[in-house]
Amino acid sequence: MSERNVVNLPDALDQVTDHWSPKVLAQVNDQFVKIAKLKGEFVWHKHDDEDELFYIIKGNLLMQYEDKTVVLNEGDMHVVPKGIMHNPVAKEECWIMLVEPVATAHTGDIVTDRTRSLEEQIQA
Amino acid sequence: MSERNVVNLPDALDQVTDHWSPKVLAQVNDQFVKIAKLKGEFVWHKHDDEDELFYIIKGNLLMQYEDKTVVLNEGDMHVVPKGIMHNPVAKEECWIMLVEPVATAHTGDIVTDRTRSLEEQIQA
Repeated sequence: MSERNVVNLPDALDQVTDHWSPKVLAQVNDQFVKIAKLKGEFVWHKHDDEDELFYIIKGNLLMQYEDKTVVLNEGDMHVVPKGIMHNPVAKEECWIMLVEPVATAHTGDIVTDRTRSLEEQIQA
Repeated sequence: MSERNVVNLPDALDQVTDHWSPKVLAQVNDQFVKIAKLKGEFVWHKHDDEDELFYIIKGNLLMQYEDKTVVLNEGDMHVVPKGIMHNPVAKEECWIMLVEPVATAHTGDIVTDRTRSLEEQIQA
């Protein structure tokens, strides 16, 4: 956030150089607002206690569930409910905004080489 | 939200016919995600216990504070901190997304003819 507490999301995303590495931009109450660039397939995981909001700034995203796939296009908002296994897949680069609790673990109850700690998400 | 739990924010805003009347589109944890069309000047108010996130989908918004005015353009995100007096002013029609706690009162600790109850925000 700038001194006046404003951040332009497309501009901030433009400066992100790595994929699947969320950056914390703001806190609203007990939730963080993050941005990330996604490309390729992530990893199946769930968050037992936290809903996760996805908003598509640019591009398209497939949200795979065990029983369906939800297609998300630019301007679409989608909430992944707590406790539900999911796997985001971006065929081409996709820019997203996320809203999730401060306590949310990146890859839920599993840890992979893709996992980014909260410290990494804030410092970046 | 549709059956697949997806809503396109610009499309949803396109169907809003009144100004200063937030519509609840989704819940993520203890927060509501709302959309609203703004035009003209609202009313000075504060929310003692709730931060309020503004994201500008289309247009421009001036967020007036007692000691400054913050200019918000398309793609900008801004958090109004809890307890701070503020007054949104849109010279031309502005489309926004809001994230705020489920419990947030529309006009904070005051009630005016502009005030929309939570029931009105959900039913609309």
